[in-house]
Amino acid sequence: MIEKVKVAVVGVGNNTSALVQGISFYRDTGSLAGIRRPQIAGLGVGDIDFVAAFAVSGDKVGKDLHEAIFVPPNNFPRLTAEMRPSGVTVQRGLVDSAEVERVAHAVEGAEVLLYSAPSGRPDTARAYAEAALAAGAAFVNTTSDPIAREPFWLKRFEEAGLPLLGDDLASQFGTSVVHHALLRLLEERGLTLVSSYQVNLGGTEDFRNLVENPNTKQQSKLNALGSDKVQVAPLGYLPQLKSQKIAHLNIEAQGWGGTAVSLDVRLQVHDPSGAAGVNIDLIRLAATALRSGRGGYPAEAASLLKSPPGTAI
Amino acid sequence: MIEKVKVAVVGVGNNTSALVQGISFYRDTGSLAGIRRPQIAGLGVGDIDFVAAFAVSGDKVGKDLHEAIFVPPNNFPRLTAEMRPSGVTVQRGLVDSAEVERVAHAVEGAEVLLYSAPSGRPDTARAYAEAALAAGAAFVNTTSDPIAREPFWLKRFEEAGLPLLGDDLASQFGTSVVHHALLRLLEERGLTLVSSYQVNLGGTEDFRNLVENPNTKQQSKLNALGSDKVQVAPLGYLPQLKSQKIAHLNIEAQGWGGTAVSLDVRLQVHDPSGAAGVNIDLIRLAATALRSGRGGYPAEAASLLKSPPGTAI
Amino acid sequence: MIEKVKVAVVGVGNNTSALVQGISFYRDTGSLAGIRRPQIAGLGVGDIDFVAAFAVSGDKVGKDLHEAIFVPPNNFPRLTAEMRPSGVTVQRGLVDSAEVERVAHAVEGAEVLLYSAPSGRPDTARAYAEAALAAGAAFVNTTSDPIAREPFWLKRFEEAGLPLLGDDLASQFGTSVVHHALLRLLEERGLTLVSSYQVNLGGTEDFRNLVENPNTKQQSKLNALGSDKVQVAPLGYLPQLKSQKIAHLNIEAQGWGGTAVSLDVRLQVHDPSGAAGVNIDLIRLAATALRSGRGGYPAEAASLLKSPPGTAI
Amino acid sequence: MIEKVKVAVVGVGNNTSALVQGISFYRDTGSLAGIRRPQIAGLGVGDIDFVAAFAVSGDKVGKDLHEAIFVPPNNFPRLTAEMRPSGVTVQRGLVDSAEVERVAHAVEGAEVLLYSAPSGRPDTARAYAEAALAAGAAFVNTTSDPIAREPFWLKRFEEAGLPLLGDDLASQFGTSVVHHALLRLLEERGLTLVSSYQVNLGGTEDFRNLVENPNTKQQSKLNALGSDKVQVAPLGYLPQLKSQKIAHLNIEAQGWGGTAVSLDVRLQVHDPSGAAGVNIDLIRLAATALRSGRGGYPAEAASLLKSPPGTAI
Repeated sequence: MIEKVKVAVVGVGNNTSALVQGISFYRDTGSLAGIRRPQIAGLGVGDIDFVAAFAVSGDKVGKDLHEAIFVPPNNFPRLTAEMRPSGVTVQRGLVDSAEVERVAHAVEGAEVLLYSAPSGRPDTARAYAEAALAAGAAFVNTTSDPIAREPFWLKRFEEAGLPLLGDDLASQFGTSVVHHALLRLLEERGLTLVSSYQVNLGGTEDFRNLVENPNTKQQSKLNALGSDKVQVAPLGYLPQLKSQKIAHLNIEAQGWGGTAVSLDVRLQVHDPSGAAGVNIDLIRLAATALRSGRGGYPAEAASLLKSPPGTAI
Repeated sequence: MIEKVKVAVVGVGNNTSALVQGISFYRDTGSLAGIRRPQIAGLGVGDIDFVAAFAVSGDKVGKDLHEAIFVPPNNFPRLTAEMRPSGVTVQRGLVDSAEVERVAHAVEGAEVLLYSAPSGRPDTARAYAEAALAAGAAFVNTTSDPIAREPFWLKRFEEAGLPLLGDDLASQFGTSVVHHALLRLLEERGLTLVSSYQVNLGGTEDFRNLVENPNTKQQSKLNALGSDKVQVAPLGYLPQLKSQKIAHLNIEAQGWGGTAVSLDVRLQVHDPSGAAGVNIDLIRLAATALRSGRGGYPAEAASLLKSPPGTAI
Repeated sequence: MIEKVKVAVVGVGNNTSALVQGISFYRDTGSLAGIRRPQIAGLGVGDIDFVAAFAVSGDKVGKDLHEAIFVPPNNFPRLTAEMRPSGVTVQRGLVDSAEVERVAHAVEGAEVLLYSAPSGRPDTARAYAEAALAAGAAFVNTTSDPIAREPFWLKRFEEAGLPLLGDDLASQFGTSVVHHALLRLLEERGLTLVSSYQVNLGGTEDFRNLVENPNTKQQSKLNALGSDKVQVAPLGYLPQLKSQKIAHLNIEAQGWGGTAVSLDVRLQVHDPSGAAGVNIDLIRLAATALRSGRGGYPAEAASLLKSPPGTAI
Repeated sequence: MIEKVKVAVVGVGNNTSALVQGISFYRDTGSLAGIRRPQIAGLGVGDIDFVAAFAVSGDKVGKDLHEAIFVPPNNFPRLTAEMRPSGVTVQRGLVDSAEVERVAHAVEGAEVLLYSAPSGRPDTARAYAEAALAAGAAFVNTTSDPIAREPFWLKRFEEAGLPLLGDDLASQFGTSVVHHALLRLLEERGLTLVSSYQVNLGGTEDFRNLVENPNTKQQSKLNALGSDKVQVAPLGYLPQLKSQKIAHLNIEAQGWGGTAVSLDVRLQVHDPSGAAGVNIDLIRLAATALRSGRGGYPAEAASLLKSPPGTAI
């Protein structure tokens, strides 16, 4: 029987709640629903053990991980009636880089350090990467802060023989995935795009932050969709949606003879599930690379990341 | 300058209206909107000349082709303000196989015989195939009646050195195309399909016929979508839609942790445009094969057909 | 404290399941969600006691009412985790009018006989009305079979001093309610209707029957919407929907200057809840009339019925 | 034959374009499509003559009114192929209150001064009201700036025997109208509202302004919808929509037994048509009151206004 992957996780938000609960759900139910890759190098989705967790919020620090994942503003639903205590107590996260040593010490024994904090704190991301190097763990950066695409960091992980996976996870299934697929389909079939829009509504803290500070993310979405005919309208924060995202997409195009083709799509999805469904693969790829002694960036992670090494910072 | 393809067309319904008007629209406007392949072996979409046309309706026979395409029940819209007479008078189509000779004579000089009549009249389809053989023309069967996938007919066209393209054109863009693409996307991303439905509404005679005789087509759609979790609800005939089709698709799935993912799509499209956008390619592939002396089924037509040779009859 | 209404129910389908479960749900939870009239003459929604139940299906007869309501093809969801036995055993329903006496005997003691069988069996409806007269109970006819709008029956109930409420319940909330409201809104605001359609999808036995025998119901819907510009497309039976109905409505109109106005609506609702939410009021109105000695048709039921006395048969 | 109403209009934006074009469209075509009240006191929608127009934009001033209404950023569509010159040259609007005399002089001879400038410039609104008083014209304030609901102004118009209609026109048909109607319907039918949202997308300058300065308008919408369960998500400016507005509404509710009811609505409408369809009535009500010597606020205008006299400022 394969040895379970020992994971330390930074950030105890909705994405971690979805990951931790999902692993427990699959172990308990034997369900395979919604799993992209049942096995990676022999590792199932249940073959993960959390050995450490870090959070900044005083409401989460000191609590058992299985309790902390339900502390507000977390609002991902409970997947199962009950979760037994994990035995892992959430520790205070890094607030400045002087604490790298403390964290590195706490991470010791973990094979993978999953960095799942909010984006936009590059210093913190770098401090945890440093801690992973010190602790001898693979590092998975799910944020858009540049680590894996910084040659400085990539080189250090390569030299240390430690895997580095990042940056910015590409959700398993979300608005961009659907919008992309439909625009690509139009192109394949020879239709001419006239205009398109995308409106996203959500109820998480991430959404609230994006609504208050929308420019970067929207611009990045526009670039990703690759056309000036595609507009991403302002994000809407609707607390009643909790961790669900609702997106309205519209595509107007022309078919043969210039006749009109219209597509209107409503997508409803739990954002944190889209993240967890990818994190479970990144963790297993990281552990597999570590166990086989491959340091640096494993190319097989490319499809799971928005900004892998080689993309612009 | 390349020589234009001489085409005889059987059936002067909406699909022929869209094809004839579209060719004229692209010649007049220089637009490339909605064209899948601007050139096939040097042939542009305007490089088509109609040299003969056959219809059964007494209201169409005897009229100029550019007038007949607007005769009810045709209800495809006018793409341009005005169309000059084509000089081609619609002839009475075959009603029994004793007339093959008459038709073959009338088709002489055409390089391609485009069979664009309603599906469900296999005897008629065979008689026109016979006429194409007699006249030395390539034959394009856009109906679901089996010709190209009948070894008997394929062999005869091969032996005659005449191209045979069929059966059953795959629309450039329609409900099945979108439904397929989304179901495939779900699968690629590892989501688990729970249920899905598709409702089609349209206002053409084809729709009216399908509504009155729904079983075959629906069953074929179900097979095409390849899952017993996908349901195709009854077709609805709504005359006010004219040649537009409106489809409502729903997909319910499960993502990570078994969480719900919902997709609702409304598609609005002109059905005859979807047919014409493929017929324009089939004609050009047929002419190209004929001109280079290749008889039988040209494999490059495969993606444009639902039931090419080798599929079940 | 008010005395509870003693009800005998004919038909143990989804509508009865929704009614029986709903009463239990409101008693247990104290919730007021979805209740139109919390009190009618002092009677709350929990002030109902079932004293007899009749069904035709051999799978339901002989079972406790709280068990029979979950027997297939019933597919209304369980509203609460558990229901204690009701103490009422489902009896074999009338199959011919020779059995009126048996049923009348079984109904004795009930104040209200709720006739909630499928529509389309006028003989059966009449036999139960006869039984109600014999047993001295008020009669509520929720089907479209004519009883209350038959002067013969109305006169007999009047003479017997027994209330008669019918015919054909008007759902609390469904496609017609929403479609009507939107068409009326357009009219009030001075918009000009161009076209409109309605597509209904559902998964109950009622839906299956309507799909197999669609004409009457659709015609009645068209009449109800009062315009030849409104089309009701074929109903679709999608078993996966169970007792849910999904409707797609479209309204195309013209505003000032002839400019286009489009409304597209997707409605999702549990059909049996729409029936139960009205039956609860009909029962209470019937009991109140009976208790105050008013026979015949109580006018205050008018808004709950599609075909009250005075409408065409 | 009735004498046409002489109107001076302030603001030559999309709303004025829709009004001016619509009047011309109805005169030319005899159509009644989209007209709420064909006659008001004998005045048809074509019985309007523009006698003066004021704009601030240098691109509009000096042009014929029928030309100026098409100058960007105006983007309301052309309703008819061609419009003959109106003979009215757009004049420079007021920029400070010292110019009241000039404007009053230019307005002389008009019966109604329609104030149709953007909201948010209360000083300008007051200056034009002053000019109307000086010129002896009725004043119609379509903006949310307080005039009619200011007792000071109402009293002055009453004393002068001049009608004053305002404030803030209630669109003939828009998102709020539909949202309101559906929420009211739910309430009438006894459903319990769980949550609701509204997203508005548009392509006019008004929309751009609202997007850049969203708070007031949204708050006012929320108040109008009268429930803290209803959320109005940020407005989205999508230039490709031009003068069209697209709104996505969602309503989640509970029916009998607490079962879920969902309504999703997509509304597409030309915003300026909704304004013009109300302005045509306000003008005719104003003229009718003036002609019958009734000064002050005519109560029959109430349903056309969001903030009539007596509402909060």
